[in-house]
Amino acid sequence: MVRKPTPEDKFSFGLWTVGWNAQDPFGAATRPWLDPVESVHKLAELGASHVTFHDDDVVPFGSSDAEREKILDRFRGALTDTGITVEMVTTNTFTHPVFKDGAFTSNDRRVRRYALRKILRNVDLAASLDADTFVMWGGREGAEYDSAKDLYAAHQAYADGIDTVAAYIKDKGYGLRIAIEPKPNEPRGDILLPTIGHALGLIAKLEHGDIVGLNPETGHEQMAGLNYTTGLAQALWAEKLFHIDLNGQRGIKYDQDLVFGHGDLFSAFATVDLVENGFPSGGPKYDGPVHFDYKPSRTEDFDGVWASAAANMSTYILLKERAQAFRADPEVQEAMEAAGVFELAKPTLNEGESLEDFLADRSAFEDFDVEEAGKHGFGFVRLNQLAVEHAMGARG
Amino acid sequence: MVRKPTPEDKFSFGLWTVGWNAQDPFGAATRPWLDPVESVHKLAELGASHVTFHDDDVVPFGSSDAEREKILDRFRGALTDTGITVEMVTTNTFTHPVFKDGAFTSNDRRVRRYALRKILRNVDLAASLDADTFVMWGGREGAEYDSAKDLYAAHQAYADGIDTVAAYIKDKGYGLRIAIEPKPNEPRGDILLPTIGHALGLIAKLEHGDIVGLNPETGHEQMAGLNYTTGLAQALWAEKLFHIDLNGQRGIKYDQDLVFGHGDLFSAFATVDLVENGFPSGGPKYDGPVHFDYKPSRTEDFDGVWASAAANMSTYILLKERAQAFRADPEVQEAMEAAGVFELAKPTLNEGESLEDFLADRSAFEDFDVEEAGKHGFGFVRLNQLAVEHAMGARG
Amino acid sequence: MVRKPTPEDKFSFGLWTVGWNAQDPFGAATRPWLDPVESVHKLAELGASHVTFHDDDVVPFGSSDAEREKILDRFRGALTDTGITVEMVTTNTFTHPVFKDGAFTSNDRRVRRYALRKILRNVDLAASLDADTFVMWGGREGAEYDSAKDLYAAHQAYADGIDTVAAYIKDKGYGLRIAIEPKPNEPRGDILLPTIGHALGLIAKLEHGDIVGLNPETGHEQMAGLNYTTGLAQALWAEKLFHIDLNGQRGIKYDQDLVFGHGDLFSAFATVDLVENGFPSGGPKYDGPVHFDYKPSRTEDFDGVWASAAANMSTYILLKERAQAFRADPEVQEAMEAAGVFELAKPTLNEGESLEDFLADRSAFEDFDVEEAGKHGFGFVRLNQLAVEHAMGARG
Amino acid sequence: MVRKPTPEDKFSFGLWTVGWNAQDPFGAATRPWLDPVESVHKLAELGASHVTFHDDDVVPFGSSDAEREKILDRFRGALTDTGITVEMVTTNTFTHPVFKDGAFTSNDRRVRRYALRKILRNVDLAASLDADTFVMWGGREGAEYDSAKDLYAAHQAYADGIDTVAAYIKDKGYGLRIAIEPKPNEPRGDILLPTIGHALGLIAKLEHGDIVGLNPETGHEQMAGLNYTTGLAQALWAEKLFHIDLNGQRGIKYDQDLVFGHGDLFSAFATVDLVENGFPSGGPKYDGPVHFDYKPSRTEDFDGVWASAAANMSTYILLKERAQAFRADPEVQEAMEAAGVFELAKPTLNEGESLEDFLADRSAFEDFDVEEAGKHGFGFVRLNQLAVEHAMGARG
Repeated sequence: MVRKPTPEDKFSFGLWTVGWNAQDPFGAATRPWLDPVESVHKLAELGASHVTFHDDDVVPFGSSDAEREKILDRFRGALTDTGITVEMVTTNTFTHPVFKDGAFTSNDRRVRRYALRKILRNVDLAASLDADTFVMWGGREGAEYDSAKDLYAAHQAYADGIDTVAAYIKDKGYGLRIAIEPKPNEPRGDILLPTIGHALGLIAKLEHGDIVGLNPETGHEQMAGLNYTTGLAQALWAEKLFHIDLNGQRGIKYDQDLVFGHGDLFSAFATVDLVENGFPSGGPKYDGPVHFDYKPSRTEDFDGVWASAAANMSTYILLKERAQAFRADPEVQEAMEAAGVFELAKPTLNEGESLEDFLADRSAFEDFDVEEAGKHGFGFVRLNQLAVEHAMGARG
Repeated sequence: MVRKPTPEDKFSFGLWTVGWNAQDPFGAATRPWLDPVESVHKLAELGASHVTFHDDDVVPFGSSDAEREKILDRFRGALTDTGITVEMVTTNTFTHPVFKDGAFTSNDRRVRRYALRKILRNVDLAASLDADTFVMWGGREGAEYDSAKDLYAAHQAYADGIDTVAAYIKDKGYGLRIAIEPKPNEPRGDILLPTIGHALGLIAKLEHGDIVGLNPETGHEQMAGLNYTTGLAQALWAEKLFHIDLNGQRGIKYDQDLVFGHGDLFSAFATVDLVENGFPSGGPKYDGPVHFDYKPSRTEDFDGVWASAAANMSTYILLKERAQAFRADPEVQEAMEAAGVFELAKPTLNEGESLEDFLADRSAFEDFDVEEAGKHGFGFVRLNQLAVEHAMGARG
Repeated sequence: MVRKPTPEDKFSFGLWTVGWNAQDPFGAATRPWLDPVESVHKLAELGASHVTFHDDDVVPFGSSDAEREKILDRFRGALTDTGITVEMVTTNTFTHPVFKDGAFTSNDRRVRRYALRKILRNVDLAASLDADTFVMWGGREGAEYDSAKDLYAAHQAYADGIDTVAAYIKDKGYGLRIAIEPKPNEPRGDILLPTIGHALGLIAKLEHGDIVGLNPETGHEQMAGLNYTTGLAQALWAEKLFHIDLNGQRGIKYDQDLVFGHGDLFSAFATVDLVENGFPSGGPKYDGPVHFDYKPSRTEDFDGVWASAAANMSTYILLKERAQAFRADPEVQEAMEAAGVFELAKPTLNEGESLEDFLADRSAFEDFDVEEAGKHGFGFVRLNQLAVEHAMGARG
Repeated sequence: MVRKPTPEDKFSFGLWTVGWNAQDPFGAATRPWLDPVESVHKLAELGASHVTFHDDDVVPFGSSDAEREKILDRFRGALTDTGITVEMVTTNTFTHPVFKDGAFTSNDRRVRRYALRKILRNVDLAASLDADTFVMWGGREGAEYDSAKDLYAAHQAYADGIDTVAAYIKDKGYGLRIAIEPKPNEPRGDILLPTIGHALGLIAKLEHGDIVGLNPETGHEQMAGLNYTTGLAQALWAEKLFHIDLNGQRGIKYDQDLVFGHGDLFSAFATVDLVENGFPSGGPKYDGPVHFDYKPSRTEDFDGVWASAAANMSTYILLKERAQAFRADPEVQEAMEAAGVFELAKPTLNEGESLEDFLADRSAFEDFDVEEAGKHGFGFVRLNQLAVEHAMGARG
């Protein structure tokens, strides 16, 4: 059986996950939206340490200031009662019809201004709750039709919007970092910043990019057929992995938001291996919360909702134990060595070697036996089979 | 009928395109490799202005220096005879077995050194031929298995490799710019720098990133389900669109390398509209060669090869005429205006508006009638239908 | 400009298309549901000849018998007033929570019985309205998890359900045929009968399969990366193409339901070419209504809704004219001849040739110059370029 | 550690798998083709019981009859020496240029005749080796361009071709059954019979369909985003699962042919669960050989080749043990019961219930509390988590 979660696991859940009413594009809600206070209590019971939310998850869209304060007081009470903390806050700029063409990149400038105000207001809330991360998912920033957008203006408006929020955070002295969440499509035909890479590309051009990073979601990268773990690695390499959204997806199709591990299980093993064990030869490591952004299937009642919440944590714990055993196995270490995994960290040029030296090194080119070297077997399949067997708990 | 190509069209072809022997993973060659000199002559006849090549396309791998010079002399002769120029050169670091685990990121350090030497040698050739662009497609930089690579070391080695080449170009005073060509997979299970975005993210971290940009290929982005035109737009916005590879792909599957327009035709219309007409409200514009990187289908003999080469140019010319008519149509302009396409270029904050002013503007938030604004129709479908009808030549 | 639709075009629209309230998985409705009577009038005005509907589109779920009759009377009045006829009726077995695990294949037997009754009731309505086709889209027949279903029992229950409906139609002497609509996924992780092929496979095992055929939808096949036109062809070959659902999809992603032609335009050309012109050497031809099953984008108001409805018809008319010109072009006929398109209809064995004769024909094998024959070029690219140019209206 | 394979495991390998020379579309061979006799010996050592092959895998294309007999004698010797048997034979109709437009559906009738002869000759060989199954993978039956094929004629020619082979098998009294292997694309843009379903649809129209069934390959179905296990289930339901090709694929991309389990591991668990344990409430069960059709990665030398062959068997054995434990776990049985998995096998109509009775049963419709029933939770996520934990060896 799987051990129980502890605070060291730093498990975190969006309130919109367990709280979801299970309405989908072809079907009516099968459950009511959950009271956030109830979710906080229940998640605490199950072993989570943190929650996250969109503004509208806790305070219904359009609430008066008075209602808002009342609701927030009650919510803070639940946090105090349970010891749960808010590690991340995000803004809903996709549900209301006004955002149908986007928020920061809507062709309607009034909407861009409104969205910016809604976001800044929520930054204040995030700061007041001592959150570390402010996630921005631009789910409506995009188009179905190529002629519908000036794509230069769209990228510029997107960058300006993020920069304005970042500047505000700095002005206010808040301890927040912004994390962009990429997604390739759905609900728009093509979404701007479709992958980890595109977001890294945008961040590089920002004025206040130093406090802007990434919140990559498992399923979102997989919806573009990309390797989530490799994406996390590039974000880490760029020192931009500020937050993660774990869930499950079964290939290139609509956004499934399954339980973590209920999508591509072996890929989830690789993800946990990277998150928990870091790169084989060292380098930056993710140390933020383990955040689940999933949806309990529409077929489930509330028992199923809580079983699914627990399943995320159980699977993560199992994968963590398996990944630790994988790295600790001497046969694995030997197989990694044989496969040249550690050799890749050795710089290609010798220490102090100038370009001139290098060009003069006949052993590197003229005298290199390229045919012989081409015969070298890397042993990757053997190493992968060791990983499969560790993931399956089949090696001691 | 379609007009003939002219030098103003700046059409360019890789020698590996028409020259390909039509061998595929399940089938033997159906044509011999073409003599590059013959290809140059024939492409000139058909109206192309430029050619491009991998080192090994012109000089067989493993040729002696003497053979190499002899072959290159003959090749230069063909260029002189035809007036064709070489606008881009690239290096083959994927065919030979020695590159089976990559070039800059092979786990075998000897291979990394060898690859770097092969590339630098080819930089000299590119410069000697007055090429403008040096393309780097790292088709073997990647993995099938998540445990096979230290992904931090891999990104670092990739960046170091490119930086070394860029430094060499600067040292030598060559007028070359490097253009990275992303691809998500095939021949590796997952390729590093899988999309335009990921390459932009890497470039941002380079020491010599100022002379490093992108060479996006239509089909490669589409293999990740991404919108090629949107990708070009982000590259332009980042001032990194150094070169383009046009071809055709029918959805997410193996790399098809069809004739441009023989994949997603309407998406090709959008691409040509951007390349030829630029962004609706201005901004950077691509003005390099129109380069085709495709493969004549394996079912074709040499008549079919040349028909396919001509087809790339004919389709491009047609799409260019259609895109120009699209933008010139007053009804289109009116529909773009109505859809807010031009409004997106207007900054979200007023000129000189401070964040304090903005936060105090009640019309932006407190007094904004969000319900009313949510009812606004953008008219995107009407605009897209105008684009369809222009692409089909159905509007005058 | 595009000519207006006429009754000969046999254009048909689902009432759930223009009527849709534009709610999606991440966003609230941006339009109210339309009154079906208003839709009928407006579609008639635009040139449509037929409408189709799910029971619940016209009569809200849970209406009393009295309400139902009142609503249907008013609806029949609109049909009479406009001359619009109902060519197809279908049943909603996916929206209500009770169907969350399917209708014919729900693990809950009570639901299977309820669904069957809902469908049979709707068969009576379809017959009373003189519809020709009764479509069954089993959107919820499927699973997210492999252990959730006994897949033998599921296929058997699906087949039994359809057979029961077919038997009822025969018993009653109704002039209806059933058309199954395949879809690979969404809203379920995997849907049973995911493609045209799988439905053909199931139909072959039915007792009453003679009145059961297919209603393939453009986007649904494309969501599996399949060629819609090729699928239609196999359905025609099997004499099972009873109805079609035309729309637009841009690759493998969530179900987009764009305007026909606003997805893969050149593929739409091939579809219309097959539907209007039939197979090159003859064979069965589709002669039913041209039915659009699309969704007006969520960004649109009602002007946009009607513009999108008209766009479906305009694009179809244009493609029809282009496909007719394509086939009528002598150069195209010559290119088809050269490509062997007509030769494929010639049987492989000679008339009256026995297997013994064939095995004794040395010219077929022993003396066949396979190397020479392997050099034959098919000229497919040239033919395809002619198709591209015809689709673009660039030839005459 | 994993137990060794035994004859009861019925493991079988294609000679083209371990024997592959590791040439891919962008790279030269990294290994020589293996001598089939060596492969037979080595596979026997590793624990395999059977081999399979294409004619050309054993006897090079174009060998004279004398050479052929000599080669076959030596091959039969290896079979005798090792006890390995040939359970399946297939024909290569895709490598030689003559097949570039297909075999049974080539537009060139001479090719269709030649292909039929090549196949019939190979049927004789299959029969002489006492094979049970004759696989037909029509990898070149298809097109890149919609106008290139008369798709009616193509389906007819395909069906006629298979029927001719089936008739020949019956005439000769051979104990062979034909198994069609579907694939959606690669090496053709679209391949005819792209999925299990399409093949079932074709078989239903054959004259000799009684001896024609399916050989579904894991990766091929997954290349269309389809669930392999669900496809196997439909084939079993149709009594057409004659053979299986197991391997690994990581999503919708080029055909990867990875080791079984090195693709979607959890999906492989479901496959083995079905193959070994059958449907929960009974029904037809696959009892043929467990055949692997994979390619040892191009990065591997011969040690890697044999490690990869062994990995297929080890992973299968592990998954088999896990699937058996899964079904034997009382908590799993209880969760299946709770989820209604067994209830689905109970027919929807009562025994002896007529349609009239059913229509008169008010409890099924009029008095059915649909709102209450809609609240029922199926518990699928809990059941799936039990499957995940069993797959990972985490329960006992």
